[in-house]
Amino acid sequence: MADSPNCDLESLSPLQLFERVTKQGEKVRALKAEKAPKDEIDAAVRMLLSFKLSYKTATGQDYQAGLPPRDLVLMNNGTTKEEDEDFVDPWTVQTSNAKGVDYDKLIVRFGSSKIDTDLINRIEKAIGQKPHRFLRRGIFFSHRDMDQILDAYENKKSFYLYTGRGPSSQAMHLGHLIPFIFTKWLQEVFDVPLVIQLTDDEKYLWKDLTTEKAYEYARENAKDIIACGFDVNKTFIFSDLDYLGTSTGFYKNIVKVQKHVTFNQVKGIFGFTDSDCIGKISFPAIQAAPSFSSSFPQIFNGKENIQCLIPCAIDQDPYFRMTRDVAPRIGQPKPALLHSVFFPALQGAQTKMSASDPNSSIFLTDTPKQIKTKINKHAFSGGRDTIEEHRKYGGNCDVDVSFMYLTFFLEDDDRLEQLKQAYTSGALLTGELKKVLIETLQPLIAAHQERRKQVTDEVVKQFMTPRKLAFEF
Amino acid sequence: MADSPNCDLESLSPLQLFERVTKQGEKVRALKAEKAPKDEIDAAVRMLLSFKLSYKTATGQDYQAGLPPRDLVLMNNGTTKEEDEDFVDPWTVQTSNAKGVDYDKLIVRFGSSKIDTDLINRIEKAIGQKPHRFLRRGIFFSHRDMDQILDAYENKKSFYLYTGRGPSSQAMHLGHLIPFIFTKWLQEVFDVPLVIQLTDDEKYLWKDLTTEKAYEYARENAKDIIACGFDVNKTFIFSDLDYLGTSTGFYKNIVKVQKHVTFNQVKGIFGFTDSDCIGKISFPAIQAAPSFSSSFPQIFNGKENIQCLIPCAIDQDPYFRMTRDVAPRIGQPKPALLHSVFFPALQGAQTKMSASDPNSSIFLTDTPKQIKTKINKHAFSGGRDTIEEHRKYGGNCDVDVSFMYLTFFLEDDDRLEQLKQAYTSGALLTGELKKVLIETLQPLIAAHQERRKQVTDEVVKQFMTPRKLAFEF
Repeated sequence: MADSPNCDLESLSPLQLFERVTKQGEKVRALKAEKAPKDEIDAAVRMLLSFKLSYKTATGQDYQAGLPPRDLVLMNNGTTKEEDEDFVDPWTVQTSNAKGVDYDKLIVRFGSSKIDTDLINRIEKAIGQKPHRFLRRGIFFSHRDMDQILDAYENKKSFYLYTGRGPSSQAMHLGHLIPFIFTKWLQEVFDVPLVIQLTDDEKYLWKDLTTEKAYEYARENAKDIIACGFDVNKTFIFSDLDYLGTSTGFYKNIVKVQKHVTFNQVKGIFGFTDSDCIGKISFPAIQAAPSFSSSFPQIFNGKENIQCLIPCAIDQDPYFRMTRDVAPRIGQPKPALLHSVFFPALQGAQTKMSASDPNSSIFLTDTPKQIKTKINKHAFSGGRDTIEEHRKYGGNCDVDVSFMYLTFFLEDDDRLEQLKQAYTSGALLTGELKKVLIETLQPLIAAHQERRKQVTDEVVKQFMTPRKLAFEF
Repeated sequence: MADSPNCDLESLSPLQLFERVTKQGEKVRALKAEKAPKDEIDAAVRMLLSFKLSYKTATGQDYQAGLPPRDLVLMNNGTTKEEDEDFVDPWTVQTSNAKGVDYDKLIVRFGSSKIDTDLINRIEKAIGQKPHRFLRRGIFFSHRDMDQILDAYENKKSFYLYTGRGPSSQAMHLGHLIPFIFTKWLQEVFDVPLVIQLTDDEKYLWKDLTTEKAYEYARENAKDIIACGFDVNKTFIFSDLDYLGTSTGFYKNIVKVQKHVTFNQVKGIFGFTDSDCIGKISFPAIQAAPSFSSSFPQIFNGKENIQCLIPCAIDQDPYFRMTRDVAPRIGQPKPALLHSVFFPALQGAQTKMSASDPNSSIFLTDTPKQIKTKINKHAFSGGRDTIEEHRKYGGNCDVDVSFMYLTFFLEDDDRLEQLKQAYTSGALLTGELKKVLIETLQPLIAAHQERRKQVTDEVVKQFMTPRKLAFEF
C-alpha cells in the first residue's frame, strides 16, 4: 500500500502499528519454530519490543494480542467476547439483558465518549433552545468530538450533517425513524445542510435483491424520510447506485479510502472472511466517503474540508471508526458522531427490531387498529402477573416496552415522570400504560402517513437531484 | 454471497466447485485432527468425494489441491511454479529464456486457444482483406471465443471492441502501442465501435501517485492513443476516476461483478494478500465491467448484451478469465479475447519493457538521434562476436532484438524473410540489420509525433465525452 515497509513508525495509525506488532510477533514465533540462529531470533525480538513500545506511545495502551487499539476495537471477531457480553455490529445486535444492551460498557469498548450533562448544557447554550428529548433522556448517549463541533460552531464555523439508511425493504418501522427525527431537529436548531445516503448497493450485496429492487426500496424509503419534515433547500438524499454514477467527487473519495484500508483491517473491524465477496469487502469505503464534503461538489459548491457530524445508531460506529482512522491520512477532517441506543422490539429490548417480522414493531403503514392490537398483544410488559400483585409491588419500567416507547415519543417530561412513578408504585396498570402509548402513537403515525401522502415522485426527485444547497460556508 | 450453501452444485462455476472441494478437504482434515467421531468423519469424506466428482464432471479435470480449474489457473500464487517456468501476471512478466516467454505453454496454462492458420484464414475471408501483420506473424497468438465473434459477424451480428491502458507515467513506449495499433486495424476492418479504459484509479491504488497526477497521465496517454488514428465517431476513451462518476450503468455492472467474486477468488487469480488494500482487492471488477455494453448507456444508446471483443497483451488475461466466469451469472455475454505476446525490451526478450528505464525501449518522444543511439548501443544482438565468425556461422534471429522489432514494425513480409535469411546465413551483419530497424522506426515515430501534435485538448475532450457512437446494433 501507500506505506513502504520501512516508513517511519510515527506516521502509522494505531491500527497499522497494531498490525506491525502482530506480524512481528508471528515472525518471532516462526523463527523459534524453525530453530533459526539465536542472533536472528534476538534481532527479531528486539524489533518486536521496539514496535510494542511505539504502539504504547501512540495509543496509551499495552499491546494485547488479538485486541486492536481501543478506537478500533472489534465487536465481532469473538477474540475477547465474554459469555454474557452484548454483541453489536452493523448487522447484528444481541444482548441477553431484558433492559437492553449495556451502553456504558459499549462506550468503553468502542472508545467513544458519554454525552453527559455538561455537553447537553453546552448544546442548549449554543442553540438557545431546550435540547431534544432524545438528548434529555439519553437516547442519543454517546459521541465522538461533539465538543469540537461546538467549539467551531461557537466561533461561527458551521458543519454539515450526514446520516443514512440501508433500504432492505419498503417497510420502515418506528425504530428507523429515530436517527431521522433527531437529524431533522439538528438541521433545524443548527441551521445546517444535510446529506442522507441510501445504501442500495449495500443491500444488493448483502441480500438476495436485484439492483433494480434495491433502488426501488431506496426511493420508497426516501418518501418516509422526507415525510419527517426535512428542508428541501438544505437536504440532499441519494441512492449509491444512482449517485456514484453522477459525482466524480464521490468516487475519488471512495478510492482514496480504499487505498488506505487493508483487508486485514476490514476483517478486524467487520468480521469479513475470505469467502466474502469483494463488494462487501470494499463497501465500507462507500459508507465512509460521504463524511467528506468533497464527495458532494455540487452540494457544497466545490467547498472542501467542511466538518461533518453523523447522527446514527451505535451499531454503525465501526464504519466511522474506520473513517476517522483514514481521514487524516487522506487530508480530510475526521467526522464527529452522535450515537443513539437501539429502539427495542415490541417483544423486549433483547434484540433490535426486524423489518421482516411484522409483529416485532409498529410500522409506518400500520392503521390505528393495528397499532392498538400490536401494543396490546405484543408489547412486553414490566407489570405483575395479577392486578393485586401489581397494585402491591408495582411495575418495572426498565423492562416495560410500552414505557420505553413512551420515552422515545412522549414529549412531555413531567407526564413521563408521572407515568413512571404511577407505574412503578402500582397505581397505573399495564393496560392503562399501554393506552397512553396507543394514544401517543396513533396520531403520530397518522400524521406521518398524511405527510407521506404529500411526498410525490416530483418531491422525491427534488430531494434526490444533486444541486447546490442553500447554505454558504 | 448470492449462492446459498445448499444450492445445486450444477449451478456453480468451476472455481466455486474448486473452492467447495478445498473447503470440504479442510473440514475433513480438521475433523481428523480433532479426532471427531468416525461416522462424522466418514460423512464428511463422502461429501468430499461427491464434490470432487462434481468438479471433474464440470471441468473434465481431476481436482488437485492448490491448482484451480484450467480456465482460471493461477500464475502467481506459486503453488505449482516450476524452477524454469515463466511467470506472467498483470504486474510481472519473467522468463529466463532469451527467446522470451514460452507462449505455447502459456496457452495450455491459461486454457486459451491458439490462433491457428484456419482462424487467420477465416478472419481474412470475413473481412475480405489481408490479415494484419500481427496476425500473420503470431504476435496476436492466442484467443478466447474469436470463432463465436466470427460466427456472429458472418450472420451480420456486430460487436464492440474494448481495450485499455494503465497510465502510470506520461512516457509511452513502442510496446504500449501494440494493442492500440492492432485495435485500430480491427476497428477499421470490422467497422465497429471501441471503448478504451484508462485505469487511472488502478495506478493511484498501486503506485505512489495522487488521483490528480494519475488523471493527468491518463489524459496525456490519451493523446498518444488518439494519435494511432482512431475514428472519433466510433471511439470512446475514458478515465475511470472521471467516467465512474458520470455513468450509472458502469457502477451497476461493477457492483454486480463485485457481488459474484470472493476474496478467495481474487487471491487465487491475482495473488492478493490480507495486507493488500481493499481498493486493490475490488479493482478487478472495474477492469471487468467495460466488457458489458450496459456499462455505456450513452455510447450504445442503452442497448445491452452487445458482444465484446478484447484485444490485449496476454498478461491482462487473468482479469478477463474472472470476467468470463462471472458473466453468465449476471446475465451478460462472456467477452471474447485476442492475446498478444509481449514486446521485448531492447536488452532482450527476458523481460517486459519498463517505462521507468529510458534505455529499455524506444519511447514515443525519442528523437531520430536517440532512436539510432539506443538501437546501436542497447539492442541485444543475435550476431556473432567477430565479423569473421558471423560470416561463417550466421546470426540468431530468435534472440536478436532488432530482428524481433522488425517483425513488429516492418510491413513487407518478403523483405522481412530476406533479412532473416541474410542474417541467419551471415550475409547480413548486425550493424546492417540495426540500420534497417533504425530506418524503419525513425519515420514511424516521427509520423506519430506529427499526428500527436494535432491532438489538441479539444480533440481529447471529444474522445473522452460520453456520447452516442456512430453505430447501430
